[in-house]
Amino acid sequence: MTAADLEGFFADADTLDPDAYLRLDYYLECRGDPRVAVAHFCSEQSTAQWRRVGSGEDLRGEFGAKVVHLAVDATLPEFSYGLKSPGEGEIHACRVRIAHPHRNFGPRIPNLLSAVCGEGTFFSPGAPVVKLLDIHFPDAYLSRFDGPGYGVEGFRDLLGVYDRPIFFGVIKPNIGLAPEDMAELGLQGWLGGLDVAKDDEMLCDTDWCSLERRSALLGAARRSAEAQTGTAKVYLANVTDEVDRLTDLHDLAVENGANALLVNALPVGLSAVRMLARQTRVPLVAHFPMIAAMSRMERFGISSVVMTKLQRLAGFDVIIMPGFGGRMFMSDAEVCRNAAACLEPMGHLRPSLPVPGGSDWAGSLKRVHDALGTRDFGFVPGRGVFGHPMGPRGGAASIRQAWDAIAAGVPIEDHAIHHAELSAAIDAFGSRA
Amino acid sequence: MTAADLEGFFADADTLDPDAYLRLDYYLECRGDPRVAVAHFCSEQSTAQWRRVGSGEDLRGEFGAKVVHLAVDATLPEFSYGLKSPGEGEIHACRVRIAHPHRNFGPRIPNLLSAVCGEGTFFSPGAPVVKLLDIHFPDAYLSRFDGPGYGVEGFRDLLGVYDRPIFFGVIKPNIGLAPEDMAELGLQGWLGGLDVAKDDEMLCDTDWCSLERRSALLGAARRSAEAQTGTAKVYLANVTDEVDRLTDLHDLAVENGANALLVNALPVGLSAVRMLARQTRVPLVAHFPMIAAMSRMERFGISSVVMTKLQRLAGFDVIIMPGFGGRMFMSDAEVCRNAAACLEPMGHLRPSLPVPGGSDWAGSLKRVHDALGTRDFGFVPGRGVFGHPMGPRGGAASIRQAWDAIAAGVPIEDHAIHHAELSAAIDAFGSRA
Repeated sequence: MTAADLEGFFADADTLDPDAYLRLDYYLECRGDPRVAVAHFCSEQSTAQWRRVGSGEDLRGEFGAKVVHLAVDATLPEFSYGLKSPGEGEIHACRVRIAHPHRNFGPRIPNLLSAVCGEGTFFSPGAPVVKLLDIHFPDAYLSRFDGPGYGVEGFRDLLGVYDRPIFFGVIKPNIGLAPEDMAELGLQGWLGGLDVAKDDEMLCDTDWCSLERRSALLGAARRSAEAQTGTAKVYLANVTDEVDRLTDLHDLAVENGANALLVNALPVGLSAVRMLARQTRVPLVAHFPMIAAMSRMERFGISSVVMTKLQRLAGFDVIIMPGFGGRMFMSDAEVCRNAAACLEPMGHLRPSLPVPGGSDWAGSLKRVHDALGTRDFGFVPGRGVFGHPMGPRGGAASIRQAWDAIAAGVPIEDHAIHHAELSAAIDAFGSRA
Repeated sequence: MTAADLEGFFADADTLDPDAYLRLDYYLECRGDPRVAVAHFCSEQSTAQWRRVGSGEDLRGEFGAKVVHLAVDATLPEFSYGLKSPGEGEIHACRVRIAHPHRNFGPRIPNLLSAVCGEGTFFSPGAPVVKLLDIHFPDAYLSRFDGPGYGVEGFRDLLGVYDRPIFFGVIKPNIGLAPEDMAELGLQGWLGGLDVAKDDEMLCDTDWCSLERRSALLGAARRSAEAQTGTAKVYLANVTDEVDRLTDLHDLAVENGANALLVNALPVGLSAVRMLARQTRVPLVAHFPMIAAMSRMERFGISSVVMTKLQRLAGFDVIIMPGFGGRMFMSDAEVCRNAAACLEPMGHLRPSLPVPGGSDWAGSLKRVHDALGTRDFGFVPGRGVFGHPMGPRGGAASIRQAWDAIAAGVPIEDHAIHHAELSAAIDAFGSRA
């Protein structure tokens, strides 16, 4: 690129219409002059070639992505992660903010993804190491999306629970049980104090545990638990399946008594989720398979925060995400950023309920609550409820007892003296970090 | 896990019904005893907890994923890529083959993904570094999928071209042109010798270049080129969009004269592609945005070969993929493996046409042909056709001239002496690697 070519991919942010551009934050390692590299980076994700041969036109003003901030953090001896790029010149670690005109693709999730984390991002010349760190949408863009139909408030309304976290439990064993056995486990969990009993994210509509029979039995068990406890309960059925079955499975599960539906966001696709969100009669809950494959590297891929924002944009009312503790390979700060991305203002979109999960039990509740600094979260043990030595009823009770202790400002060990389920949980799971 | 717990997640491959299991190859770095780590790895992707509290049942026989081969390649001083996992013990680099019972999820792409590269894979205790390297499907599983409806043969039939590669060109500038201008560029490309003129993967149905008008004008231009040249041509329209618009956009574009459709596989979702493949009246062509975010690391994520196999499984007739040369950050061996995954036997599934791409021009054709060792591939320049100094007609001619030289066993430099377009291409692009 010539110096004049370069200039067309840089802009002063103040001169751009803020409604017309997404703001994208990337980490980038590039060889040679960083200004040339980031100009190419903008070119690749927008008007790769901005004029026809023999023409004096310049499409960059209207359609070009533009660098509005560039910081060179360091010079590196080699690219991170053993990645290579041919050529000569020093390697620089950069942070760049790009203003990307959303009229290039419009309010469509697949086309948004193709522009901001597609070929242009990952195949820019001389820049093999790149991560999309964050994405900021102007309200004008967000106004074209419905977002969550229920949100935190709608999900709380379903349960009539406003003053504490929401207690989920993943019915375990997760794979292989008959629907009858699952319904009995779910019932015990609800009777013990769970708000939400859920299918595992891997459990789907199979010949050995059809969604039809499972949702009928768990729907009935939910109503029975509601009658016995006098409180509202949620059966969260996993309808993750081929896209052309989602509507039918929604109808089937909801008619049978499921009152929230689980969808594995990336395996099904965010666009299909947006479609289902337009039709659904119950809240939609996201699970996170495949996201770590793109987000775990510090300096490569697509950040988990971007994926959380996209899930909220697609319309998920509840977002299950990797939680605290070394077990889930995510820093506490990253978990907190993801929870915040669910709850913070985002145009007209309702907040989504964050549910950070991973090997939780009664004893890990305080840490989650303290780290998040809010009661607007879900807590989702599996074995911590269904592997409890007193069974799921005792397991669920241990969670509620832990919350009572936290709310009263009492250490759980003290509270456990007079609460057998909490005491048994500490004995069984207390050696977990 | 106890020693007896471990045993339930190991099996002799010969004792398993080969029709009942997928075979999955992973790279895995784990802390402590590798046998314990891979047993946990199997447990996490199948029956995480294989019996209810107080029950003597064992769900592992029928539903457990099972290690059928384990090789410990090395002991490592730390996990790769700066990743961490708490705990003590040596770190081992392992290769493991797992037999995973597909009845756990059935012939459904989202549920397949959730099982083989979901939470279980990326959140197994003590194993932060993992890559799904390959996946092998038994014919019994493949029989539940239709795969490509046209395949290589059907795509060749569309063009009546059997004895050479298929020549694609990405109309450039890719973003910002009016449909009228695109149609003129496409026409020139076809007249110069392109088989397929295509929309860029980022170009969608926008207010400044609606698919309705674009497909009408390019459909007409295609017919005009066919009339003028007496040969069949393809206009490949990008219908990447929200899932609930795919069918309508298919109908619109095909009625207007598009005779193949481009879909960005991961942004739209493989399941939505499978849905469209059931309905389509023209071949479907995949593009690769987002895949590199999961596949570029040598030892982490999901391999590009797995993604290629899944795209063929979903029903893509043609698969555009990152090609040769340092520009695309992929080794020649990996490009060749991906091309082979399109063409090699895969149950009853038709082969897909591989199209390795990236900064191609007339001079890079020989390298692609030599490396692949077949004529069953597509070649997809952008600027190499549309940025040619003599315009797209000259650019397309330069590609055909290069092929004539290759087919005749003549160096392109020699052939260029009497072919001005090839000569101009060498002058303009010859300094590219």
